[in-house]
Amino acid sequence: MEKKKILMVPGPTEISTRVLRAMMRHSEAHYDPHFNVGVLEETLDKLKKVFQTKNEVIAVPGSGRVALEASIASAIEEGDKVLCIEGGIFGSWMTEMVNRVGGKATSFQVEWGKPIDIDKLESVISDGDFDALTIVHNETTTGTMYPLEEISRLTQQYDMLLFVDTVSSLGGADIKTDELKIDFNMSASHKCIAAPIGLAIVSISDKGWEKMENRKKPAFTFSYDLLKWKTWWLPKERGGTLVHGWRRQPITMPVHLVYALREAVDMILEEGLEQVFRRHRIVSKAVREAVRAIGLETLAEESVASHTVTGVLMPEGVSDADLRNRMAIKHGIMISGGLGEMRGKMVRIGHMGTTASPEYVLPALNAFEASLAELGYKFERDAGVKAAMEVLEELVPTQPTSPL
Amino acid sequence: MEKKKILMVPGPTEISTRVLRAMMRHSEAHYDPHFNVGVLEETLDKLKKVFQTKNEVIAVPGSGRVALEASIASAIEEGDKVLCIEGGIFGSWMTEMVNRVGGKATSFQVEWGKPIDIDKLESVISDGDFDALTIVHNETTTGTMYPLEEISRLTQQYDMLLFVDTVSSLGGADIKTDELKIDFNMSASHKCIAAPIGLAIVSISDKGWEKMENRKKPAFTFSYDLLKWKTWWLPKERGGTLVHGWRRQPITMPVHLVYALREAVDMILEEGLEQVFRRHRIVSKAVREAVRAIGLETLAEESVASHTVTGVLMPEGVSDADLRNRMAIKHGIMISGGLGEMRGKMVRIGHMGTTASPEYVLPALNAFEASLAELGYKFERDAGVKAAMEVLEELVPTQPTSPL
Repeated sequence: MEKKKILMVPGPTEISTRVLRAMMRHSEAHYDPHFNVGVLEETLDKLKKVFQTKNEVIAVPGSGRVALEASIASAIEEGDKVLCIEGGIFGSWMTEMVNRVGGKATSFQVEWGKPIDIDKLESVISDGDFDALTIVHNETTTGTMYPLEEISRLTQQYDMLLFVDTVSSLGGADIKTDELKIDFNMSASHKCIAAPIGLAIVSISDKGWEKMENRKKPAFTFSYDLLKWKTWWLPKERGGTLVHGWRRQPITMPVHLVYALREAVDMILEEGLEQVFRRHRIVSKAVREAVRAIGLETLAEESVASHTVTGVLMPEGVSDADLRNRMAIKHGIMISGGLGEMRGKMVRIGHMGTTASPEYVLPALNAFEASLAELGYKFERDAGVKAAMEVLEELVPTQPTSPL
Repeated sequence: MEKKKILMVPGPTEISTRVLRAMMRHSEAHYDPHFNVGVLEETLDKLKKVFQTKNEVIAVPGSGRVALEASIASAIEEGDKVLCIEGGIFGSWMTEMVNRVGGKATSFQVEWGKPIDIDKLESVISDGDFDALTIVHNETTTGTMYPLEEISRLTQQYDMLLFVDTVSSLGGADIKTDELKIDFNMSASHKCIAAPIGLAIVSISDKGWEKMENRKKPAFTFSYDLLKWKTWWLPKERGGTLVHGWRRQPITMPVHLVYALREAVDMILEEGLEQVFRRHRIVSKAVREAVRAIGLETLAEESVASHTVTGVLMPEGVSDADLRNRMAIKHGIMISGGLGEMRGKMVRIGHMGTTASPEYVLPALNAFEASLAELGYKFERDAGVKAAMEVLEELVPTQPTSPL
């Protein structure tokens, strides 16, 4: 038997059969109105609810990285000054993207796993005359999720465009795009949304569109120029140029992936955003409590602990590679290692979308404990699972079940 | 009953159940060696056969346009002089892409549907000191397929990089990448290869890699910089930097689409390239003979008629929109209209991959005739189908069938 490895990594996540089945359908032209308006537009409309926005949401072929790049390449031009908050490896991507398109990126370093020093950030901002700020909401390198309220206050006060990477948090954490005045909220299909890999998703504010419209010269990218979506795809009453209803996609959309995405978004909306966020919050707390109950520590401070991925520091004498291999080979559960400076020093457990649930987390914690024990780490066996179960009790009352 | 519309358009094409079923599988991490080496690498290796190349073949999320853009954005830099052959709308895309990244594009206009005047082209080239030449092998705007031999001779003689857009011909026509010394052969998953939309595919020559390596500054694109594939993905013995076997994809690959692509490529190789090309050639001839038998004309001259899409000029008094609507609504068969200057003046019938076969083409031609007749066009009903059947006779002897 080919044993399937359960993905408890920081994405991609497990995909439900319901979502997979949505792809089991005939070919359809991407410009057929049945698909174009009936499916793609409907999916983008539903995604607005997940984004908590009235802004337009655009999906393009790609991954999370493409969501970042389409946004940066479309809006940032030569000479723009951008402050990039870096609290992990993914934060540094934005710096590179900004520089590649000719922007002037300034890195603001945040100690991995620690909160952002807002006063220090403000002093850099007040000195800098920046056009934009970028932040990774949920840094999977470290298992850290930064609150966005103060960041949003600053970008408003200093009139900067706000780019937020929610690749690994959208659909798993409460991100109020409009309330926070996020200009580019950039995410992907295969993390908390729990659809297959292959779509980048961005919401764009009026201010974001204006920035693109006022560029001195066109973006370097032809395919991923988001401004094209405004002119080709959006009807006139929503700021586009289309009057007679023929919606054109500036880039051919992967029809089958869009069907899968629609189904995944439906599942989130059926469960209810509040319950989805609550489930992620409680499950992540259960994982952290489990980690502590067996004497280990998370890299992230509790005040900035991620709801979708937990970074666990390795105890003395246990190799993270051995731990991961044992979990994968013996238990069929895949977790991740550390990246960059944390390579070899930590493991990262994902609990996002489908896997933010007792059905996935308890077996994963059991495998984690069993593997640690076998590798010689001394602790009270089952203490972690027990601690998690206690926290997960909070989840039960709101979980609907079918009658027998 | 929801009637499925059969896609006889210039892509996307119909997808076989076998290919669709390949996507009906659990989630897998894109960096899992089982996928990474076992599936993605294997698929790229198999694609080399379809490309008829020993060069590396790279797939990235996107569409045909992304294959073009990844190539141009990776290899062309500010000041590079590029000659772009334009014989239809898709040819003009390359011009825009080249200019967006700071290259200096010169358009070489070819009359739609007519062969390229090679002497005229050579005189422009010999005067121009160009770094590169771009050509759309199969221009779906017009149903024209240009021979590449003379073009290749010129790019070699004048030491220019050769970029060939084979988006709508790769896997349907005989394109000898190595023999023709194509530096960037750029295609997509959802045309003749007959997999779902969502993957851009490029083969890159040594000269292409060298051009990227000798750039004065990095490409503007972070996600679609093909040079990253050389450093992150290719093992040292193939020009990359990887020695210990950990293959990294510079951009997260859509796992499910890659499984589908592998299956589609398998189907092509099982049938045999020669038979696949022969099938497309004969089927396209059948369509053209049918068109002529009912008194209509193709836009493309016979010497440059495409093997994968036929552009038919509308007879006086028949609206192309009426024709297309009738075929779609009454017969469930979707064909396309003209683009740009040919809007309203022609229709385009695709016959690529799955649909380059009697099972698809004969019903399509029947619907075409029936709709024309109903719209008042006078001709000998059935003459087209009959003419097609005669040509399709050539196909029969080599078609293997299962024993009863």
